[in-house]
Formats: sequence, C-alpha cells, structure tokens
Amino acid sequence: MIYSADIFCIMQNSITLAHGAGGVIMQRLIKENMLARFSGKKFEVPLEALDDAGVVDGTVFTTDSYTVKPIFFAGGDIGRLSIAGTVNDISVMGGDPIALSCGFVIEEGFALEDLDRILQSMAETCEQAGVSVVTGDTKVVEKGALDKIIINTSGIGRRSKELERNLQVVRQFRSDFQASWLLDSNVRAGDKIIISGTIGDHGTAIMSARGAYGFETDVKSDVAPLNRMIKGALEVGGVVSAKDPTRGGLANLLNEWSEKSRIGILIKEDRIPVKENVKSALGFLGMDALEVGNEGKVCFAVVPEKAEAVLQALRATPEGRDASMMGQATDEFDVVALETGIGGKRIVSQPAGDPIPRIC
Amino acid sequence: MIYSADIFCIMQNSITLAHGAGGVIMQRLIKENMLARFSGKKFEVPLEALDDAGVVDGTVFTTDSYTVKPIFFAGGDIGRLSIAGTVNDISVMGGDPIALSCGFVIEEGFALEDLDRILQSMAETCEQAGVSVVTGDTKVVEKGALDKIIINTSGIGRRSKELERNLQVVRQFRSDFQASWLLDSNVRAGDKIIISGTIGDHGTAIMSARGAYGFETDVKSDVAPLNRMIKGALEVGGVVSAKDPTRGGLANLLNEWSEKSRIGILIKEDRIPVKENVKSALGFLGMDALEVGNEGKVCFAVVPEKAEAVLQALRATPEGRDASMMGQATDEFDVVALETGIGGKRIVSQPAGDPIPRIC
Repeated sequence: MIYSADIFCIMQNSITLAHGAGGVIMQRLIKENMLARFSGKKFEVPLEALDDAGVVDGTVFTTDSYTVKPIFFAGGDIGRLSIAGTVNDISVMGGDPIALSCGFVIEEGFALEDLDRILQSMAETCEQAGVSVVTGDTKVVEKGALDKIIINTSGIGRRSKELERNLQVVRQFRSDFQASWLLDSNVRAGDKIIISGTIGDHGTAIMSARGAYGFETDVKSDVAPLNRMIKGALEVGGVVSAKDPTRGGLANLLNEWSEKSRIGILIKEDRIPVKENVKSALGFLGMDALEVGNEGKVCFAVVPEKAEAVLQALRATPEGRDASMMGQATDEFDVVALETGIGGKRIVSQPAGDPIPRIC
Repeated sequence: MIYSADIFCIMQNSITLAHGAGGVIMQRLIKENMLARFSGKKFEVPLEALDDAGVVDGTVFTTDSYTVKPIFFAGGDIGRLSIAGTVNDISVMGGDPIALSCGFVIEEGFALEDLDRILQSMAETCEQAGVSVVTGDTKVVEKGALDKIIINTSGIGRRSKELERNLQVVRQFRSDFQASWLLDSNVRAGDKIIISGTIGDHGTAIMSARGAYGFETDVKSDVAPLNRMIKGALEVGGVVSAKDPTRGGLANLLNEWSEKSRIGILIKEDRIPVKENVKSALGFLGMDALEVGNEGKVCFAVVPEKAEAVLQALRATPEGRDASMMGQATDEFDVVALETGIGGKRIVSQPAGDPIPRIC
C-alpha cells in the first residue's frame, strides 16, 4: 500500500495522492469540503448521491479528468480511457450516452504526433461506443507546468428503452422498487452480484508500463466502452444496480453499495476471475486484486430470479465472456465479506485509496 | 506579442502556448486535427460550429478547463472563473444554465486551506448565478506533475422563455431569421454591435498579479457570471447573437462573427470602453486592449430597431452599466475594421492568440 490513513493525518493540511485515489480519504474530502457547499437545487440524482453521474430532468451528466501515467500503455492510452470512462459512467446509471465534451490541457512542447495518436484513439473509441463529441476546449500551459497532457471528458445521456424495460422486470419481482435509475442505494438482500470479467487488468498494465515490476509483463489494460454490453444486460432485465470498479477496485465498489444500500455483501474468492499473469504480477508487489482499478468491467446487482439470464447475456458478449456470479447481498451482516477458497471469511474494507496512483 | 505564427511554423511538430490561446493557431489545430475525427452524429449545434457550446436535442452543453496563473488575483480566483466562464458560455448561446460538473486535478502538497478558499469562491459564484453542481471528479497528481490546480467545469442548460421571446422579436424585424440559438453565424448587415462594458480588465489584472508591469496596478478582473444580464437583454428582444470576448479578446470575437456570418464589422475606437488604469498598464507593455481577454463582458449583435432598448436594459444592470453601442455589421466589406478617433480606418486581424498566456 502506498498510502494510508496515517499519512493523511500527518499531512492533513495539504492534499495527498490519496485524496484523489477513490477510497475513504477521497470520500472524506468530498463529503467534508465539497458537498455542503455545492448542495443546491433538488436534482433527480443529486451530487449528494455520490453516484457515477448526476441526473437533471432526465439528463444523465457526468465528468472525469484523466491523468493516467504513462499516457500510452498495453491495451490502450489516455484517449481511449477518456472516452470509455465517461461512456461507462453514464451507462452504469442506465443512461444512453449521446454526446461528450472534451477538454484538453496540454504541456507546451508536447509532440503533435502524440496528440494525433491520442485523438485518433479517442475517435475510434467514440465510433466503437456510438457516441460523438459535441463541444470542446483546448488549453496549453508552459513547459514544466504539467506532466504532458490531461483530458477531461464530460458526457450527457438519456433514459434508454432498455432501462425502462429492465425496471419493469425488476418491479415484477420486487413490487416496492421505486428507483428510476441504477443507483448505488438500490441493492437489497438476496440480490445476486455479477462481475462482468477478470479484475485487476488495468492497474496491473499501468504498473507494468511504468516498469514497476522490474520485469515485463504481458498484462493488457481492459479499457473499453461498455454501453453495448450493459444494454444487453438491461434487455434481459432485473438489474437493480450497476457500477464500474475503477479507482479502489471491487473493494471500493462493494463497500459503496454496502454503505449506500445499508446491506451486507458476501463474495466468494474462487468466483472472482483474475488472470494468471495479473495474479503473479500483483503478488510480486503484494497488492490485492480487489483494490486495483479496472476500466473495462462492470459489477451488476440483479434480482435473483433473473441473475442467471443476465449472466448468460453478458457471457454472450466479447466484453463479458468471463462474467461470473461471484456473490450476493445479505441482511445477515452489514459489511463486505469475502469467503476464501478454504471456507474462511474475511472482511473486505474500503481501501484508503487505490494502491496505484494515476491509473485513470 | 508573446507568440506569432512564425514560432508556430518553427515548432510545428510540437504544441506551443499559442495552440491554446484562442486565436488563429488554436483554430487551425482544432480544424485540422480534431474536427474531421470527431464529426459524427448530427446535432442541433454541432462541434463543427465551433461556437461557445454545442446543442443536443435542446440541451446546451459546454466545457472549459481552467489553468489560470496565478490562481488568486485581484477581483477573483480560479474558482470564480471556473463557474462564471461555463455559465457564460451557456448563456451566450441563449441557454439557461441548470447544472454544472466540476473536475479537479490537484498537485500533491497543495494547501487544503487554498482548496477551501477556491471551493468557497465557486459556491458563492454558483449562488450568484443560481446554478448548482450535480456531478464531480477529483484527481491528484504527484508533486511537480502540475502547477497547483486545474479545474474543468462543464455545464448543461435549456432553452429559456426569454430566448423564445427574444427570437419572436427578431423575427418581427427579420422575417427570414431561421436560427433557434444565438449563433456566431447569425449576424447580418445593419445589426448593431454592443459591448456590455469596459474591455481588457481581466487580462490586465492577471498580468498585474504576475508582477509583469514591475509596478502594482489597481486593475481588477471583471470575472462574473452574466446569465442574469443576458436574460435582461433577451427580455427586451432583438438579439441575434451574443458572445463573450475571452481568449483573444474582442478582436478574436469580432473576427469569428465576421468569418462565420460572412459579414464586415465596423467598430468605432472612441465607443470602446477601456478603463484608464487598464489603458496605461497595457500601453506600458505595448499590448492591444482589443486582443486581451475578458471574463465579465458580452458582445451583442442586435437588430437595429431594438439596439437602443437593449443598450438601455444592459445599462440598468450592475454588470452592464458601461455598455456601449460600438459599431455595426456591414456588407460594404468582409473584415473587421476599426474607425480611429481621428477618422482613419484599420483592419482588426484575428490574433494569432491571446497575448497573455494562461488567463483562464
């Protein structure tokens, strides 16, 4: 682990890497310094929900600034990441992404050839996701004032007919279901938890690209736009929540569900898909795959009656072929617990932050 | 002038400050490297319009990344700028800003006290503009990888009843008027050009805060959200286009109108309000107030029959008290021309870029 709550206490008067690492420390900064100031108008899904996107009068709206280092890595680059990440944040709410904005901040002296490569990658990812850029901004700062390039992509989306259909199916099995979006607070006891594929690929590829292991790995990032895969799951119906395990990984995601839905979650270690090369690379650094960020995976909570059908629909897609039903929500306890291969149980805590800085 | 097209030619294989400075060189980068790749779905106001915002199914959508240096300056700070700038970009399209996103990228070690001061300023500016933040993102990069802090704010807005009313008034006087937003391409011969107040304040305040003049000035930035002032003008009606003269100043704005509307624009030097302290500070550095960026001004093109009424409505507001009818559109030529105090005329070219880097 690179940072811990201790470091935070020591350095409490300044910003640490952990403040941007998607875990407990970031949540604290947001809750204590931002929420009170910005809570304003009543929105359909407000800032206070701290979900993957906000919703205003039926429009899903989300933003992400991408600072990944290095900007090119096995399986992707900052351009692909910037499109996929924002498309996915809209999609996991149940939204259909319709338009993106791109804000570039570039260091003086950055090679035009590299910018072109990034733009091309963004364009290809837009094409793959079926979204377009409708507005943009370009700023340049003097040499030394920025490490190469930062891209912000924000995005807007609308309700899809697949979401409507999905919610109808949910209500067939859960008559008291009120939510009109796939919120973190929607999970109930008995819901099955499905992960759409192997975890840890992205963070491991980033570490490998930095030469962190002292040897090369063949691990590739999973970065991909997942809106079509998610739509496929919604067509089956019964999905109550969906979320992508980015910074802080699956450990952070499940703890957010647990906290916001006030529910326990039990997952089984041997049902969590991790590639062998990822396992050994992370083992080398003593990192927990559960805490490492992903950029091409979604975790679904599904009413039990439809879980198997959703699983099969996911497995029929290229992005979801390794999907696994890895656990379920329970009211027997109110934390996230992992059942190990030999039958023991341990609590999966919310990480202080993703162990790998600047993965997205 | 800090940069010129010559520098661009020499350094054409890498990004220069001019690529982000809002002038000819930035436009070229956008047109040659970005537009072809990102033109996709047919939107109501697409990326290709290169206007202040895009429009998708009635939703105005815009983005800006703020890199201003220094982050605190007389009259404002990066927080106020980040809210006002995005609110204004929505408003000059005729949109009513309803929700913003905030993406922070912060350098490790940044003082929490400074972050709090920025957040408080953002909150106060939101309050002043009557908008709220609905979604956000926080990233931290290691010390040395960024000069303090960058804020991206994107925003969405909707058609306002004031815009509808305004367009009805326009059509009373111009029966062939088709546009449903206040586009750069809407200006026609005879339209009066109104500037809402003094120019050059913001850029001059930024230069002063950097100690660029070698002496202190009492120039304050004009940074302010202008949505209420713009609504006031639309209530009168007759506004065909509105735009805020930010990077590249009034010279860039008028050239964009001239190019996109295929029209000439004649402005009178003695009708352009410039504060005395701004005039002397810019004179000291040999800078042209027309090319210096503003963050609290709007330029309106108005049908002649309503121009005086719009001017009076602007002057009745605190932000528009120095408003001036400074010129008009003409089909006698197709460039931007300035009539000097002694009656001579000179062409106002589109600047290569704003002469002051990192003003927003």
